[in-house]
Amino acid sequence: MANFELTREYIENLRLLIEQKDEETLLQLLGELHPADIAEIYEELSIEEAKYLYFLLDDDTAADVLIELEEEDRLRFLKALPSEVIARRFIDKMDSDDAVDVLSELDEERQKEVLSFLNDISVAGDIVDLLHYKENSAGGLMAKELIKVKESWSIITCLRSMRRQAEEVDEVYFVYVVDNDGILKGTLSLKKMLLSATDTIVKDIYNPDVISVNADVTSEEVSNIMNKYDLVVLPVTDSIGRLVGRITIDDVVDVMREEAEKDYQLASGITHDVEVSDSVFRHTKARIPWLMIGLVGGLFGSRVISVFEGNIDDNPQVAFFMPLIAAMGGNVGIQSSAIMVQSLASGSLGIESNLKKLLKELSVALLNATALALLVFAYNMAIGSVFALTLTVASAMFSVVMFASLFGTFLPLFLHKLKIDPAMATGPFITTLNDISGMFVYLLLAAYFFGVFV
Amino acid sequence: MANFELTREYIENLRLLIEQKDEETLLQLLGELHPADIAEIYEELSIEEAKYLYFLLDDDTAADVLIELEEEDRLRFLKALPSEVIARRFIDKMDSDDAVDVLSELDEERQKEVLSFLNDISVAGDIVDLLHYKENSAGGLMAKELIKVKESWSIITCLRSMRRQAEEVDEVYFVYVVDNDGILKGTLSLKKMLLSATDTIVKDIYNPDVISVNADVTSEEVSNIMNKYDLVVLPVTDSIGRLVGRITIDDVVDVMREEAEKDYQLASGITHDVEVSDSVFRHTKARIPWLMIGLVGGLFGSRVISVFEGNIDDNPQVAFFMPLIAAMGGNVGIQSSAIMVQSLASGSLGIESNLKKLLKELSVALLNATALALLVFAYNMAIGSVFALTLTVASAMFSVVMFASLFGTFLPLFLHKLKIDPAMATGPFITTLNDISGMFVYLLLAAYFFGVFV
Repeated sequence: MANFELTREYIENLRLLIEQKDEETLLQLLGELHPADIAEIYEELSIEEAKYLYFLLDDDTAADVLIELEEEDRLRFLKALPSEVIARRFIDKMDSDDAVDVLSELDEERQKEVLSFLNDISVAGDIVDLLHYKENSAGGLMAKELIKVKESWSIITCLRSMRRQAEEVDEVYFVYVVDNDGILKGTLSLKKMLLSATDTIVKDIYNPDVISVNADVTSEEVSNIMNKYDLVVLPVTDSIGRLVGRITIDDVVDVMREEAEKDYQLASGITHDVEVSDSVFRHTKARIPWLMIGLVGGLFGSRVISVFEGNIDDNPQVAFFMPLIAAMGGNVGIQSSAIMVQSLASGSLGIESNLKKLLKELSVALLNATALALLVFAYNMAIGSVFALTLTVASAMFSVVMFASLFGTFLPLFLHKLKIDPAMATGPFITTLNDISGMFVYLLLAAYFFGVFV
Repeated sequence: MANFELTREYIENLRLLIEQKDEETLLQLLGELHPADIAEIYEELSIEEAKYLYFLLDDDTAADVLIELEEEDRLRFLKALPSEVIARRFIDKMDSDDAVDVLSELDEERQKEVLSFLNDISVAGDIVDLLHYKENSAGGLMAKELIKVKESWSIITCLRSMRRQAEEVDEVYFVYVVDNDGILKGTLSLKKMLLSATDTIVKDIYNPDVISVNADVTSEEVSNIMNKYDLVVLPVTDSIGRLVGRITIDDVVDVMREEAEKDYQLASGITHDVEVSDSVFRHTKARIPWLMIGLVGGLFGSRVISVFEGNIDDNPQVAFFMPLIAAMGGNVGIQSSAIMVQSLASGSLGIESNLKKLLKELSVALLNATALALLVFAYNMAIGSVFALTLTVASAMFSVVMFASLFGTFLPLFLHKLKIDPAMATGPFITTLNDISGMFVYLLLAAYFFGVFV
């Protein structure tokens, strides 16, 4: 199976086949595809077409496709199906972490109904356990399916038990070693098993250096740990160290990607996760809130400027540099806040004291502010601006860059302390604040210098 | 081994022990740590302290720590070591992909020297092969170490061969199935092996649905494929389909993270990868280029405004709304470009035609522009601004939002076509361009409306 590329021709052909109800050809086409590809195709079809295709799939594939669908599309499907079908056709075929993801999108009433239709009580029990965890925690990310062996077993006993356990698990990456109380002791690599005699005791060959997390740890921390230690699977324990589940890297990659996209979008002034192919309404909804903040801020800024109407009337050149000062405040503020946001997100703030961080940011700001102020000073001298204007622009540039740097550094830290996403501090919010304060400082300095020199 | 948290106390204690040359306690402390933790500690120590610690480590750990170090720190170390030590102590102990990463940081002369000191000619051969691939391609990401079996073998033959192969491979995730010419045919899951009788032939049980990539594919594409299909390992083939290596998800996670951080930083106007803990000089160097673009743009903008000095002199209220119009152009432009950049990066542009995309973006822009223009119109009516100003601000808002949306959408597409990173189109660059053009349109409209109505 090569990597599949969706084309318009492919979709058109598929639509034709659906219209002709050509089951045979369709089944053959679908058979060649990965569930992720089928999910991609679904998003290009009408609901009716998609439904028709969906019921051609076997149960396992149908469950996999459901997981790969976008949340909205999935919800629409689930709403249209009776609880029994959801239970037997989907939940029963899924890994426990996926089952929980799907179930948690339904309301509580519906969840209970679906669970009551599950055949296997142990599957239902696992899912109920998992539903207790917060979505953004290690417990919310983990699956119950894993392979574990006791430290007292021999390799041959392990193999026998693993055969049984493997029937429930999709892929075997690691074998976990526990003691009689179920406390996680370490891992047994498949490589070690391949290389050891069959009567070797697990205790003598397992690797006790296992990195694990408590189920309450946040998914951000999970992602940082798996990334730092280059892990593919991370075992999860309860508060007394018993092995309760495992998190695989693909789920964490999704978390990471969403986190990075969210930060990027906040920095760009977009509130929802939108893609080019989303509807006009969704695009507008994602963009308008930040534009409103910009608008209100700008209107407020216009009031600030109007206070200085007399000055502008007397010296209209003051207006020339207003957009420059406003823009530089915004630019510097975004830079400073972006660096903080990224360091907070990756947990790489280091062990420097806050005082040292403050001093460093002050030095960077001082360097940038001095350089930029000198440049505009030289520019205004060169083009022969009046001296009051030259002084105003240079000193306003200096103040604005200093202020925006410090503000951009400390606002994310402050939000982080308040448990608000520090990424809120980037983008239009900080630009607007710096625009207004920059304008105010600039016009105040203009009033002062033009008062002294003119 | 629990998750390690670096504290200032820990570092101070370690420094004291290094000063006292207390080898025994240090070895005990280091023994408890993961190479990634040791690398983290190194970044807090002086070069002399770090070197002392480094030579206490055994070869395998030393090699792992080297990989985990930041590129700069690693280079400093490597420069100080003779080629023979690099070859025997590091390269020989590493997976081929890591070995290539380290080697490619050295100059060509040094690479050859190091390679000549390798004991195992097949390791050296693998590395030379890998050095041919571009860093940002599947070939550049892959490692040569993998476990493969022939489709004609029985399970028992496989196990015997795998025991031999496993000695060279760190972790076994998948067993690849090839034919007699080495062409990749599929995978054999360890689960299937556990569940099958030992005389079963591979041909009868292997899974032929394997997703693979050609070695020339870009790392961006590799990351999209692994993400879409939730893969942990991806086999790499040459142009005739022979299995030549495999890429593991942890290497791709690094690529993804770097890619996301770079986009985020470009959107925030930062050129290099900087962290809070980096030096003042590095911070300044990362920030000043974009500030210069903002400065030059702003100064150019001031020239544009000065052309309209007469208008401002006659009607100083025109100046009140200049920062608002400039800021809104910037905000809208960043939103539009961010959505395009993200869609281009994730390959999720969909199969809509360019015309349809244009029409959609036009609709979104029209909605936003109309809403914002009506709002500022109402605002100016409410505060009783002169009618010429009210009309100017509203119509400028409309034009600026329309223009910035379209510009923000098409600039990234255009850069992408030119094979320039579209993320360059976000951040200060687009803000500045939209600032200037917004200012120009606004003042032009002001000149017109004040000419007509006043």
